[in-house]
Amino acid sequence: MKFFRATLIIGLTLCFNSSPVLGQSQSIMGFSEKSSLVQMLNEKEFDKRINGQNLDEWMQYMSARPHHVGSEYDKKVVDFVASKFEEWGFDVKVEKFDILFPTPKIRLLELTEPTKYKAKLTEPPVDGDQSSNQIEEALPGFNCFSIDGDVTSELVFVNYGIPSDYEELDKRGISVKGKIVIAKYAGSWRGIKPKLAAEKGAIGCIIYSDPKDDGYYRGDVYPEGAFKNEYGVQRGAVMDLPYMPGDPLTPGYGATDDAKRLKIEEATSLTKIPVLPISYHDALPLLKALKGPVVPERWKGALPITYHIGPGPAKVRLKLEFNWDMKPAYDVIATLKGSTYPDEWVIRGNHHDAWVHGASDPISGLVALMEEARVVSELVKTGFKPKRTLMYCAWGAEEPGLIGSTEWVETHADELRRKAVAYINTDGTGAGFLGAGGSHTLEKFFNQITHVVDDPQKGVSVFERRNAIEKVNQRPPWSHFKLSALGSGSDYSPFFQHLGVASFNMGFGGESSGGEYHTMYDSYKHYSRFKDPGFKYGETLVKIAGRTSLRLANAEVLPFEFQHFTTIVTNYLEEVIKMADKMRKNAESKNKMINDGIYELAANPKDNFKSPAPEIEIPYFNFAPVENAISTLKKRAKEFDKASKKVITPSKHKALNAILKDMERSLTRDHGLPRRPWYKHHIYAPGFYTGYGVKTLPGVREAIEQRNFTEVEEQIQILSEVINSFNSKIKDAIAIMK
Amino acid sequence: MKFFRATLIIGLTLCFNSSPVLGQSQSIMGFSEKSSLVQMLNEKEFDKRINGQNLDEWMQYMSARPHHVGSEYDKKVVDFVASKFEEWGFDVKVEKFDILFPTPKIRLLELTEPTKYKAKLTEPPVDGDQSSNQIEEALPGFNCFSIDGDVTSELVFVNYGIPSDYEELDKRGISVKGKIVIAKYAGSWRGIKPKLAAEKGAIGCIIYSDPKDDGYYRGDVYPEGAFKNEYGVQRGAVMDLPYMPGDPLTPGYGATDDAKRLKIEEATSLTKIPVLPISYHDALPLLKALKGPVVPERWKGALPITYHIGPGPAKVRLKLEFNWDMKPAYDVIATLKGSTYPDEWVIRGNHHDAWVHGASDPISGLVALMEEARVVSELVKTGFKPKRTLMYCAWGAEEPGLIGSTEWVETHADELRRKAVAYINTDGTGAGFLGAGGSHTLEKFFNQITHVVDDPQKGVSVFERRNAIEKVNQRPPWSHFKLSALGSGSDYSPFFQHLGVASFNMGFGGESSGGEYHTMYDSYKHYSRFKDPGFKYGETLVKIAGRTSLRLANAEVLPFEFQHFTTIVTNYLEEVIKMADKMRKNAESKNKMINDGIYELAANPKDNFKSPAPEIEIPYFNFAPVENAISTLKKRAKEFDKASKKVITPSKHKALNAILKDMERSLTRDHGLPRRPWYKHHIYAPGFYTGYGVKTLPGVREAIEQRNFTEVEEQIQILSEVINSFNSKIKDAIAIMK
Repeated sequence: MKFFRATLIIGLTLCFNSSPVLGQSQSIMGFSEKSSLVQMLNEKEFDKRINGQNLDEWMQYMSARPHHVGSEYDKKVVDFVASKFEEWGFDVKVEKFDILFPTPKIRLLELTEPTKYKAKLTEPPVDGDQSSNQIEEALPGFNCFSIDGDVTSELVFVNYGIPSDYEELDKRGISVKGKIVIAKYAGSWRGIKPKLAAEKGAIGCIIYSDPKDDGYYRGDVYPEGAFKNEYGVQRGAVMDLPYMPGDPLTPGYGATDDAKRLKIEEATSLTKIPVLPISYHDALPLLKALKGPVVPERWKGALPITYHIGPGPAKVRLKLEFNWDMKPAYDVIATLKGSTYPDEWVIRGNHHDAWVHGASDPISGLVALMEEARVVSELVKTGFKPKRTLMYCAWGAEEPGLIGSTEWVETHADELRRKAVAYINTDGTGAGFLGAGGSHTLEKFFNQITHVVDDPQKGVSVFERRNAIEKVNQRPPWSHFKLSALGSGSDYSPFFQHLGVASFNMGFGGESSGGEYHTMYDSYKHYSRFKDPGFKYGETLVKIAGRTSLRLANAEVLPFEFQHFTTIVTNYLEEVIKMADKMRKNAESKNKMINDGIYELAANPKDNFKSPAPEIEIPYFNFAPVENAISTLKKRAKEFDKASKKVITPSKHKALNAILKDMERSLTRDHGLPRRPWYKHHIYAPGFYTGYGVKTLPGVREAIEQRNFTEVEEQIQILSEVINSFNSKIKDAIAIMK
Repeated sequence: MKFFRATLIIGLTLCFNSSPVLGQSQSIMGFSEKSSLVQMLNEKEFDKRINGQNLDEWMQYMSARPHHVGSEYDKKVVDFVASKFEEWGFDVKVEKFDILFPTPKIRLLELTEPTKYKAKLTEPPVDGDQSSNQIEEALPGFNCFSIDGDVTSELVFVNYGIPSDYEELDKRGISVKGKIVIAKYAGSWRGIKPKLAAEKGAIGCIIYSDPKDDGYYRGDVYPEGAFKNEYGVQRGAVMDLPYMPGDPLTPGYGATDDAKRLKIEEATSLTKIPVLPISYHDALPLLKALKGPVVPERWKGALPITYHIGPGPAKVRLKLEFNWDMKPAYDVIATLKGSTYPDEWVIRGNHHDAWVHGASDPISGLVALMEEARVVSELVKTGFKPKRTLMYCAWGAEEPGLIGSTEWVETHADELRRKAVAYINTDGTGAGFLGAGGSHTLEKFFNQITHVVDDPQKGVSVFERRNAIEKVNQRPPWSHFKLSALGSGSDYSPFFQHLGVASFNMGFGGESSGGEYHTMYDSYKHYSRFKDPGFKYGETLVKIAGRTSLRLANAEVLPFEFQHFTTIVTNYLEEVIKMADKMRKNAESKNKMINDGIYELAANPKDNFKSPAPEIEIPYFNFAPVENAISTLKKRAKEFDKASKKVITPSKHKALNAILKDMERSLTRDHGLPRRPWYKHHIYAPGFYTGYGVKTLPGVREAIEQRNFTEVEEQIQILSEVINSFNSKIKDAIAIMK
């Protein structure tokens, strides 16, 4: 600590110049004025030591060969990461879980009528990118956890294959029963497409990347530009993630050596029908061969054809067989024990497995995490000792379904429930504008950080730059940095939604779009040309995620507060009430139009439109229990804020932190959400029919959306109890502070 | 008249059953209760005699061969129409005007760098449509009134080539000076594209039909479907129509034998640079060869490429030479003299010339007009005698720039100013929903008609069907049939905007989309397959346009009223005031963002964006003179309405009609609009930078849009005087009625 004292005066000047806006006080949240200054100086030292060259070199090494789950090179990556952490002085553990990981044995897709076409299903090497030659070693295009199957039937184009698309089919009297559907990627998480298709009676599912979404429509294609060329195939998991992530054979508990495993036939999170992803080169002959109605305007892609729905005359055969093997998932856990609160854990994570080379996904985020750990270790050598335990984790088997992190969380659930303070996730990251999602109890805390880290191109804070794009796009300016609500799609999900650990997910984007995601072309070459050349935004992410970890690890009082959370929960409830009102009004006006025959009058007889079926009318709900709970929350949050402005004697810190650490946990319930008990958080969940996309206040919201009115009342009750238990925890905290 | 008396009782039952909604009274506007009944019976007789077979046969004959201005077959069409009118007993006159009509001699378009491509510029024959073989006889793809030229330069893609597109180019620091631009069809009238390109310094202009606008993106292409195949080329005039239509050599006066003609070099309405329309087959290699920035989202078309702006490296040569010949334009005028008011003229018109076969444009509208005339002549044989003179007109040379109608109107201007009551136009028509534009002093009158004519597919009135589509598309339901404001694009323009003759333009659409417009493929085959198979909507148009003509011709008191007009003018003024407010607000916020450097902060350095230039700030304007004039208008309109509810003694009809006939005229001023004196109407005009698209209250609105603030004040003054002179005419009318 000597070093810092000597530069205190300079530090003062520096930090006040570079951080004019820190929220309501010039101190860092959770730090006293004095310790704030020390922390700021630590952060200056931290920044100085960041070396972008490391990000570059490590990415080159780790993305040099395909490193999917169970591959030879994934083990090399694991060893590399572990050895680095060891080299930097962390206590390193590699935990291995044996998990189900099917890989393709037979992939056959043929158009059999009215013409013949056999899908290529390969991504050829491209000029100037050596890594695209490593076809032998790579997993080809497939959807992980598709079942085996050999099906032949007429084809139906279903747009993105989401619920609103099936409503359009209904209007035209088209059923997918017994058919094979072809859906575009995007519009939802991919696993929703086969799930919904199967529910509607389809026997097979093809997913393709339309050039409108990430191909030539968006920009020049690889290798000329960053976007998807005609052969690029997005791989990806299709297990029933909104039902439960993790190893399908050990649902809800760790896939340890001695765990009791389901038989494959018993696993419930596999798809019900075979699924295969293809390129737009392979999709074109199939779509071209479809007849039947022309698709609605918003279904149209960018292929040079008239898009038709079918069914047929295009008929396809889809044959898939997989090696249903067990493979090792390795989690690297590097620990730096806390000096004051060793049993309060700040966990920082990113996965290491990739679909192929994964330069962007996940290596770009992993190298930022590693550089953060390295610099922390350097600070430690100068005498810096974080109060809480810091853990740097590199997860395995994220790609097939967040498996490495889920199994680790499930295995260590009890300890984590007691010790975890927060989880900070990164994954693929690019350049441009900071985007972050997370717990709104930490929004105010995170906002401070976004004001003191500069954008590497523009010399203003990342907050100011983000705010500039909001203004230019004529959206309301931001008074503070807004965290989005977390859905799913990366390793925060088991921490956040299963255990109730306050979490973050962050990265840069907006100036690094491309079509490489989960293809053969997500390579170092691609990344360094189109994503973050020079790794300047990678360095900036180290500064932001590093501050997030270090401030949480080092704060005297954990920097949770509840006014931001109150505002956002109030907004969510308003949204839900408005949604119910809108659904009610729409159902009324639609039913009136049906009764008045208006749809019949407007319809073009050539289109063979059916007048829609009458909608179930939406009753009025009693939201009062939640409204009352939120009303109390507002008061408590204000009181907490008032109390936290006074100096809290250090003797109270431990007891106070113990409560604050568990605040997010009190938003969970053991019974979880209806029909998916693994998801225990009652404020945020991935949508049952959107996948990655979040649903806030999910119990109530989805019950309304699904028109399950009894469940609406039950979930209103549960939600109000959840918020009230949160309220009493705040009360406990206030009592200590007083 | 005997016939009608005998069936009066039945008639009563019939008409009250079939027309429950007739506006505020059960009588037809302009008719006494008794004469209403007679008129309704006449209309029933009219309907009975309509024979769709005639529409079919006449279209087959008239679209059998290309019949552009000056062609052998156009003369045949003229003779056919004239002979029919004569056969039906009309007094027929064919008026001939000698006009400038350039046709292509040399058309060359080549991509010279970085690769070579020579544009085909031909529309090949298609299977199953014999008329597409008549290539020799047809005019190839060209833009009429393009100047000659031979230019070579780099290419720049300018989207639709409208003002907002050049703003996007400015943001990127891209100039078209010395370049050749390529613009998509649509987004504005085509003539705006070369006009604006020349103003911006371009030396040549290519216009192509993107498949997104009327090709495969919209639906199957011809001959499989109705939309534009890869070779289809939209021909069309590019003279400066918003400045003045008609023969370029006789601006503002008739192109009669003895008229003094300008030299071609003196003509001001020709383009300033050479222009050529091409197919998307020919556009693809050109657009593919462009580099430079990727276009903004809303510029993207449906070709399978990444759209780039350029300039270059694509370089093209465009060489055009025309035969600058004089050709005859024939107007056929068939007159049935009025029994009571022979000097009050109701004029019904449609053009006969086409770009090629023109089955849809214009023959579909012309056959409806001819059938109307034929049935009127049959009624005349049963003793029916319209009070006013009815004139059925088939105009020549509409396609190159409304020339036949304009020259006729200019030649007979004095007589028309004295005698014209109304002009009713049709042009290409299809199937589905009635669309009509016109003078809002006749909106209430027209509304009645839309309630008593049934849609041929659904058995409800055309009003109800139109209202159904409004409701299904979640637009506000209609309380009455809404007339759109007339811009330009067909022969009503000289009547309406030059002379101030109250006008209509009407037709069916919404279930007859296609890509045949102005191509080789606008054939009988195309029309009868995709537009109005069986001519049921053609028959319905005969009923609607026929009622419009007959009621106007036969009314005791001309059915003008002023409350609808007042409402719409009030709306227009509100729009203009809101527009000024919005422009002011936008300029303020934009300038603030420029000053704050927000655009710089948000911009991606790779995009080479320029911060936009500061906007001129918009002052507050004194709209009070117009507001006061409208306030008086409201009172007068109400008084007129009240007065017209009383029985008006027949002795007053003549004097009252004389005033009503001239009402629309009082909305014109001899000096016309700024910089375009030919356009004399001060409520409606085609937009100076939109072409066909209307600008209401054009003097004031365009002065604000162009930020010509002195002119805004002047135009407010003029507009208020125009409305006040209209007010005093209403006062005169009321005085007679009392």
